Amino acid sequence: MTGTLYGIGVGPGDPELLTLKAVRLIAACPVIAYPAPESGASLARTIAAPHVPAGRIECPVRLPIEIERHPAQAAYDAGAALLEGHLAAGRDVALLCLGDPLFYGSYMYLHARLAGRFECRIVPGITSFAASAALTGHALAARSDSVAVVPVTLSDDEIGRRMAAHDSLVFLKPGRHFARLKALLTQHGLACSAVYVERAGMPGERCLTLAEAGQDEAPYFSLVLVHRRGKAWQ
Amino acid sequence: MTGTLYGIGVGPGDPELLTLKAVRLIAACPVIAYPAPESGASLARTIAAPHVPAGRIECPVRLPIEIERHPAQAAYDAGAALLEGHLAAGRDVALLCLGDPLFYGSYMYLHARLAGRFECRIVPGITSFAASAALTGHALAARSDSVAVVPVTLSDDEIGRRMAAHDSLVFLKPGRHFARLKALLTQHGLACSAVYVERAGMPGERCLTLAEAGQDEAPYFSLVLVHRRGKAWQ
Repeated sequence: MTGTLYGIGVGPGDPELLTLKAVRLIAACPVIAYPAPESGASLARTIAAPHVPAGRIECPVRLPIEIERHPAQAAYDAGAALLEGHLAAGRDVALLCLGDPLFYGSYMYLHARLAGRFECRIVPGITSFAASAALTGHALAARSDSVAVVPVTLSDDEIGRRMAAHDSLVFLKPGRHFARLKALLTQHGLACSAVYVERAGMPGERCLTLAEAGQDEAPYFSLVLVHRRGKAWQ
Repeated sequence: MTGTLYGIGVGPGDPELLTLKAVRLIAACPVIAYPAPESGASLARTIAAPHVPAGRIECPVRLPIEIERHPAQAAYDAGAALLEGHLAAGRDVALLCLGDPLFYGSYMYLHARLAGRFECRIVPGITSFAASAALTGHALAARSDSVAVVPVTLSDDEIGRRMAAHDSLVFLKPGRHFARLKALLTQHGLACSAVYVERAGMPGERCLTLAEAGQDEAPYFSLVLVHRRGKAWQ
C-alpha cells in the first residue's frame, strides 16, 4: 500500500483561516512537508504551526519562492523524489501550501510529477485576495460582474485593456511594478476606489488606500483590488 | 454597546471546508442568521449545521437566491432591519454565507446597509471554483497567468474575446447557457481540457469532462474551468 499525498491550502497567513479538513489531515498524516527557503523558516509551516502535532516526520522541500519565474524543474524533481520516498513506503504526506494549492502555488509542479503513481488529494485554501477583500470590506463581485486577475508584468496597453474590459480587478504581487500600476489606475479613473493590502493575515498587515501607499515598490506579499463601480453592490 | 455583524463564509458545501475562524465565531455569537428561501431549508445553514450549537437565536433572512439578477432592494432592506434589531440590542450576529461573502454573495447588500452604523467583520470562505479545482486537480493559475471569471450572459463575441485574452477561465453557473458555452469552448479549441463540476461538496456532486456532460442546460450549482495550456503547470 502506497501513501496518499495531500496538497493542503493553509491560507495566506492567519492560522485561524485553515479549514477543518486541513487541520484534520495535518493531524492524521505521519509526514508533514512544506516548501522552505534555503535558509530561514517556511511560511506555510509557520502558519500551520498551531496545528502540527509533536513527533511528526518533518520534510522541508526546497522550492523557489518566486513562483512567477519559470519553474525550477530540478528543484521540483528533487522535491518530488523526497516525497516519493515517503509515499512509496506507505506514509501519507500532508504538503502544506500557502493560500490555495492550485492558485499560483508550487504544489501543482509536485502534483504533476506524482499524481500518476500516487493518490493525490487537494484541500482548497483561502486565497490572499479573498482574505484581503474580507479585511477591507471590498466586495469582489456581484451579479454578472466580470473579474480578472491581471499579471502586473503585462504591458501598459494590455493592463489598460483589462481595466476597460472587467468590472473587478485583482493585481497580485505588484512589487516593482507598483508605481506603474498606480499611474495606470489613475489614468483609468480607478485609483480612488482601489484598495492596497500588505501581508494580509501576517504580522505587519496593512490596509491602505492607494493615495496612502506612497512608495514606488510594494513588498512581496501585497496586492491591489479595485472595482469599476467603486463598491460592487452599487 | 451594539453588537457586531460577522459575515461568515461557509464554503460551497462540504462542512469540513469551514475555517476555524468561522467555527469559532458561529459558536460565539448568540444570533445565527442565514439567507433562506421562501420555503425549504437554507443551504448555508445546512452546511454549517454541525457547528451551530443548540439554543441559539435563529434568524432566517429571506433573500433572492438568484444573485445574478438585479438585487431585490426591498428584500435586503427587510433583511437588514431584521439584523439591525439584534445588533442594536447588543447581540453579535453570525450571518452565514455560501462560499465567500464578498464573491457573488448576498452578504454585501446587507453589509452596505449596516456597516455605517455597526461593526462588521468578514470571514472569507472557500469559493466553489477553488473547491471544484481541488476536486478535479485542475490547476487554476501558475506563474504570470491571467485568470478571468467570465459571466456566461455575455455575447458570443465577448466570451470569445475573453477566451483569447486569458490563460485560465472560470464560468460560474452556466445554467441555460451551457450548450452555447460548450460550443464556444469547442470553437476556441478549449473543449478537451475543460472540466465541468456539479454541486461541489454537496450531495450529488459530479465531476465530468465536457464531452461527458451531454445535456444542454446545467443545474444551478455548476461551473466550468478551463486552462489554455490544458494543465497550468505546463
